[in-house]
Amino acid sequence: MEKGGLSVTQAAAVARVIVAGERDACKSHGIYRIEGVLRTLKAGKVQGAAEPYVVPGAKPTIVRVNAAHGFSNPAFELGAPLLAERAKQIGIATLVINDCTHFAALWPEIEALTELGLAAMALCPNYSTVAPAGGTHPLLGTNPFAFGWPRPGRTPYVFDFATSMVARGEIELHRRAGKPLLLGWAIDGGGAPTTDPEAALAGALLPFGGHKGSAISTMIELLGGILIGDLTSNESLDHLGTTTLSPSHGELIIAFSPDAFSSGRDGDPFARAEALFEAIAGQGARLPSQRRFDARAKAESEGIALSSAEVELLNRLLDKGLDAVA
Amino acid sequence: MEKGGLSVTQAAAVARVIVAGERDACKSHGIYRIEGVLRTLKAGKVQGAAEPYVVPGAKPTIVRVNAAHGFSNPAFELGAPLLAERAKQIGIATLVINDCTHFAALWPEIEALTELGLAAMALCPNYSTVAPAGGTHPLLGTNPFAFGWPRPGRTPYVFDFATSMVARGEIELHRRAGKPLLLGWAIDGGGAPTTDPEAALAGALLPFGGHKGSAISTMIELLGGILIGDLTSNESLDHLGTTTLSPSHGELIIAFSPDAFSSGRDGDPFARAEALFEAIAGQGARLPSQRRFDARAKAESEGIALSSAEVELLNRLLDKGLDAVA
Repeated sequence: MEKGGLSVTQAAAVARVIVAGERDACKSHGIYRIEGVLRTLKAGKVQGAAEPYVVPGAKPTIVRVNAAHGFSNPAFELGAPLLAERAKQIGIATLVINDCTHFAALWPEIEALTELGLAAMALCPNYSTVAPAGGTHPLLGTNPFAFGWPRPGRTPYVFDFATSMVARGEIELHRRAGKPLLLGWAIDGGGAPTTDPEAALAGALLPFGGHKGSAISTMIELLGGILIGDLTSNESLDHLGTTTLSPSHGELIIAFSPDAFSSGRDGDPFARAEALFEAIAGQGARLPSQRRFDARAKAESEGIALSSAEVELLNRLLDKGLDAVA
Repeated sequence: MEKGGLSVTQAAAVARVIVAGERDACKSHGIYRIEGVLRTLKAGKVQGAAEPYVVPGAKPTIVRVNAAHGFSNPAFELGAPLLAERAKQIGIATLVINDCTHFAALWPEIEALTELGLAAMALCPNYSTVAPAGGTHPLLGTNPFAFGWPRPGRTPYVFDFATSMVARGEIELHRRAGKPLLLGWAIDGGGAPTTDPEAALAGALLPFGGHKGSAISTMIELLGGILIGDLTSNESLDHLGTTTLSPSHGELIIAFSPDAFSSGRDGDPFARAEALFEAIAGQGARLPSQRRFDARAKAESEGIALSSAEVELLNRLLDKGLDAVA
């Protein structure tokens, strides 16, 4: 990524989340993303040498970091320690990231905060690919919603999911494989339910959970876009003009101090949460992210295996930098 | 309710949400609830003369109100102005209600905050009636999740829904009508999907949206129970020993100041939100709560109509107080 023109600040923070993705067998957020990062840079839609900065003058519960039109990742790394310190001091605090290019999963950020003993929620828009429930056209993004709770000495309770039924990439995979979609994933350009990937790509994805998921996705547009004075999914798509590059928008992260909130009440919140997790896992239900954590344990003992095609990709990018991407 | 032994403080706050329910044609939170209120009082599971109080010493972002084992509603009314003032001062603030009996919808609370120009999120556990996705037994509650955004001069953007596919009352209505359930609403006592209401009542409800809804419901146990040092749905059921009375637990309400969060950024957040709402409604999708607001407009011009059976119920309760309930 440095070869392509990213500063060390940008490249290192982006590399950390890409390595975390590979480590956890999240291929969709792994090294495959490097090309997209370079493509967005080449298109002039991200500032490769941006230096994120803390915006002065925000209210005491708000740590506001401006990504200076660089990637969200170095902005998060700058703001996270300030957010954690603030939440521990005053109970709840927020990290607002503005003017960033965003392509990463939210769980690396959630986990960085749970490691500091905080519960955390993160959300952001994307670009318009999802119709609101009952609607006919793309308006909402796949708007991820993530939450975590610390488990001292263990991997945390973490979920991080798209508020669409499936990711747009899933539709594309079905198209390439010539496989029909499940009903309920998407609608065609006329707003009618479809199982045809081509028709779905010309139409819209659907939110998970019907009108409830649609309402949550709308909440994410409001909190992760409008509240923080940054772009909605619709505005982000207008701004970018394509869904082939990483979108520009903001992000909202909320950190809660369990120590502060449970102060003066009976019971240790971390021990009580363990009882809840045991009751879930004890009846055969999986805790979210368990597959990721299993892959992580394997990678930590055996290393991360790349295919020869992946190694070739890395070598080509290392050799040619921006010239390697369209 | 005073006849039954509730103090004016308790009765008035409870009456306000019950009237709001009737006004909005939310019969499930209307006068039908009065019997349940009195039944819970008669069983000694709520303190009818409780005086909620602000707990001193909380961190600056936390307004903590102890309901003193009364209903949540007067505790909310005590804490809401303090929460709103705090959120406007510092950006984000929370209202923690502890030691309350809870039976009300969350939208009256959300709307009280949107009327003050704040965005708000509210959540609380319930008692265990819902199996986690992939599980076999009731553990989670129907755990409501509510959010609102102010629309100056108009009814707000508000959603308030159970994180189960349907409410337990819906299963009971199907049982009485001899109608099968939809597949996906519930499982039987052995954890297998069922459409039989009797089997479902002996089994568990299912969360909305599969593992995503299940994760959100678990988040609500963590934030609305364990974080704030109050009961989870499982503990609440243990404490009460039945699902026929109103449950005891806490509640978490988070208020966001759009003015504070958008400060220094381009665009007016309220005007920008209107553009989003227009884009949703403009493609034929309904904004949440619209049916409620339509009913409200009707009630405000025509009054609230009660059936003769409902009037008889009210007269019987007025005449006999606690003796009228089992």
